[in-house]
Amino acid sequence: MKQKLILFGLLLTASAAYSQDHRHVQINPTKPDVTEYWDPEVKLVTPGAIPSDAIVLFDGKNLDKWESIKDGGEAKWKVEDGKMTVVKGTGHISTKQKFTDYQLHIEWQSPIEPETLKSQGKGNSGIFMQGMYEVQVLNSYQNRSYRNGQAGAIYKQSAPLVNPIRPMGEWNVYDIIYTAPRFTVNGGIETPAYVTVIFNGVVVQNHTKIQGTTEYIGQPLNPVHGPGPISLQDHGNAVSFRNIWIREM
Amino acid sequence: MKQKLILFGLLLTASAAYSQDHRHVQINPTKPDVTEYWDPEVKLVTPGAIPSDAIVLFDGKNLDKWESIKDGGEAKWKVEDGKMTVVKGTGHISTKQKFTDYQLHIEWQSPIEPETLKSQGKGNSGIFMQGMYEVQVLNSYQNRSYRNGQAGAIYKQSAPLVNPIRPMGEWNVYDIIYTAPRFTVNGGIETPAYVTVIFNGVVVQNHTKIQGTTEYIGQPLNPVHGPGPISLQDHGNAVSFRNIWIREM
Amino acid sequence: MKQKLILFGLLLTASAAYSQDHRHVQINPTKPDVTEYWDPEVKLVTPGAIPSDAIVLFDGKNLDKWESIKDGGEAKWKVEDGKMTVVKGTGHISTKQKFTDYQLHIEWQSPIEPETLKSQGKGNSGIFMQGMYEVQVLNSYQNRSYRNGQAGAIYKQSAPLVNPIRPMGEWNVYDIIYTAPRFTVNGGIETPAYVTVIFNGVVVQNHTKIQGTTEYIGQPLNPVHGPGPISLQDHGNAVSFRNIWIREM
Amino acid sequence: MKQKLILFGLLLTASAAYSQDHRHVQINPTKPDVTEYWDPEVKLVTPGAIPSDAIVLFDGKNLDKWESIKDGGEAKWKVEDGKMTVVKGTGHISTKQKFTDYQLHIEWQSPIEPETLKSQGKGNSGIFMQGMYEVQVLNSYQNRSYRNGQAGAIYKQSAPLVNPIRPMGEWNVYDIIYTAPRFTVNGGIETPAYVTVIFNGVVVQNHTKIQGTTEYIGQPLNPVHGPGPISLQDHGNAVSFRNIWIREM
Repeated sequence: MKQKLILFGLLLTASAAYSQDHRHVQINPTKPDVTEYWDPEVKLVTPGAIPSDAIVLFDGKNLDKWESIKDGGEAKWKVEDGKMTVVKGTGHISTKQKFTDYQLHIEWQSPIEPETLKSQGKGNSGIFMQGMYEVQVLNSYQNRSYRNGQAGAIYKQSAPLVNPIRPMGEWNVYDIIYTAPRFTVNGGIETPAYVTVIFNGVVVQNHTKIQGTTEYIGQPLNPVHGPGPISLQDHGNAVSFRNIWIREM
Repeated sequence: MKQKLILFGLLLTASAAYSQDHRHVQINPTKPDVTEYWDPEVKLVTPGAIPSDAIVLFDGKNLDKWESIKDGGEAKWKVEDGKMTVVKGTGHISTKQKFTDYQLHIEWQSPIEPETLKSQGKGNSGIFMQGMYEVQVLNSYQNRSYRNGQAGAIYKQSAPLVNPIRPMGEWNVYDIIYTAPRFTVNGGIETPAYVTVIFNGVVVQNHTKIQGTTEYIGQPLNPVHGPGPISLQDHGNAVSFRNIWIREM
Repeated sequence: MKQKLILFGLLLTASAAYSQDHRHVQINPTKPDVTEYWDPEVKLVTPGAIPSDAIVLFDGKNLDKWESIKDGGEAKWKVEDGKMTVVKGTGHISTKQKFTDYQLHIEWQSPIEPETLKSQGKGNSGIFMQGMYEVQVLNSYQNRSYRNGQAGAIYKQSAPLVNPIRPMGEWNVYDIIYTAPRFTVNGGIETPAYVTVIFNGVVVQNHTKIQGTTEYIGQPLNPVHGPGPISLQDHGNAVSFRNIWIREM
Repeated sequence: MKQKLILFGLLLTASAAYSQDHRHVQINPTKPDVTEYWDPEVKLVTPGAIPSDAIVLFDGKNLDKWESIKDGGEAKWKVEDGKMTVVKGTGHISTKQKFTDYQLHIEWQSPIEPETLKSQGKGNSGIFMQGMYEVQVLNSYQNRSYRNGQAGAIYKQSAPLVNPIRPMGEWNVYDIIYTAPRFTVNGGIETPAYVTVIFNGVVVQNHTKIQGTTEYIGQPLNPVHGPGPISLQDHGNAVSFRNIWIREM
């Protein structure tokens, strides 16, 4: 009966003066199942410390999934006590595998360093999305630096919303959701890269637009590229990493 | 020699402290032809009062390309002196052909009407993109109405930036650039419709986002749809139209 | 010296044919500190099970921060063993406080229900952003329903990317990042609402555009509104919730 | 009476099972005047060859509104027969006034040049939005060049949709709608620049996103800037311009 009443209501509306209702499509569905989609079935994932569909990039034992950027050879960082640690001068390392869009889990620890080290000089490293776009790693505990260069920043592009860092020597966690940029056939940006960063359980970047490549000097650039590795920076400080896994999205 | 000097400069940059340049792609092209695209060749169009790739929807002679919305039969508006004129009560008319994205040229004229007619009662008609989204036609010359209901408005959604209307009885011109909405597989809006309106040579809507269907009462709706006709409104006033052409884009 | 060389390089470029470099601004900074922003200092937050800047909405003891939607009076759900549980027929409940953009943490548990209950009939509840936009709660463990209606869906709008649900009777966790819609002065959508949902540590909605209000029948609507409550749905099943906190962003 | 019937219909819907209607705002207006906005009144503009609110930048008599970019002194192009013509080697010229968002009307003419001149060598000039973003001017009549470098292109960024150029020696018209970029406080792009170009009455760029500064070699850059001039390019060919006016938007 409801249906009839509503139709009657519509008829009355339609007859009022000059109706605009000359439309050639059903404007609004009137049954619930019109907006219910069953297929394809959503894929099951078993949640846990490491979700069942994750690729483990570092399990504390070796650097088999990583390589040196300097020479394309073995990654020469130190592996001990379930963590990998930057060895100054050995250079950045990258995953051998390349990725597009993903959820990345990574934990990191600043070394115990003297008070005399300050700003960018203390616990400095970085995690590069597709080898180009840096989420900054820095000992930002009681160590002021430029806001767009501290831990949780998109380096030189976007400061973190807040600073939820743990004291020097403790482990910090980044959960990163990364969407790669797409390019036009003419080499322009179709859609930029976006990144969400949850830092020790606290949102510090919420779907932040990445302006382009991370540049120490000058403006970000926007080269056309495909999938890229996760890279970790040797900035000279003995920063450690552990429990690294990624889920392709 | 220039090339060499620049390379030398880059080398100096790279050796400074810990370089970030571990990137796996060519970040910036160094030759002009990298950014020059030759194919496919851009299609030639002969410009003129009617561009060579336009479809003429009304040339002043007959309504062969139009139909009545009321009954799907012949459009019953009057054709005389190279123009078509609303015949009150015959209802809206639509093109038989349906369109997606386009450039539309259309000229319209308010009838000579008494001062006693006011606001929406004077020279009221409308042009509906895809039969659903109305660019308002109204005698807005010395005739105040609600700003989002006057000539050049997206009816009830967006007022024109300025009012460049000509005096009652003179011809007005709309040049409209319309981009149809796209929908997700789940029936949501992927990208909304957009419209640019140039009214007597003056921009009055600049890539305005269309909020949804034109509704006299209540909110715009967003039904999923494909191509749709150009529709013209019988709002009871003897508004005339002429020189209607469209270019699919 | 590097600086000079680069300048020399630019001069050479400039003299080549007809330079385009007539630009009135510094196109690219040449010193690192130009892109370093120090102020204002980023606010410190102490991370933990509940971040130091969170508002606790339910700590397991009482419903003081909630009210009944039916009558605006006390929320009449049951509080026991550190959790609150739907009491069928008492209706939805809402926070007394209203929110705009936020990070929300909430844990929920399906009751133990017989196999004979199926699809939307099993462990059904929901969490409404601003009282209007629902993140679905459902016992989706070995219980097929429409994909845009299962746990982690934006109800009837967006299916979850994957299904990381825990078995019936276990606790599930949602970490939600919500950005409220903004409206134009004319009542249109300036920017839509967006939501990211992490379900048991797995991303199931990544900055999903919310199409409008959650509607069981027909299309989402887009009323203009300001801040709104978090609402929890009484759908007749004895779903439980615990550990609810929110951080305004 | 209609009103009552519709309310009755809603009541029936609401009583069905567990209603979702716990919403704290009026979801959909039920009277037409809720969506009618009267103030402020839309500004009147008198249309015509030059709209009444336009600033004339060149009326065929002198270059008083222009200056040389090379030395900031007088613009040294030739003014004769109601047009201005590039004098090779005198350099680009800019308006003294700076602009942000606007509608620009400009007419241009290729000189009569021999068949031996080809591609970018023939009738080459350009119109720079804010002195940085070039809408290409080229004799593209029976003169193939790279598609993103021909008349109507956003130079090296976006090819025109079609090529509606007139034969060598005839006048061409550009009607340009330009929206300036906006920048974040950290020097990133908040919203990019957009441009619509109508070329001899035919749309060739429809709200095209500008990728950054026009660069002959390498990628566009995105310097932070405020208002900027209209600049015209001396590319060595004796291209002429006339009837230049602009409306700030």
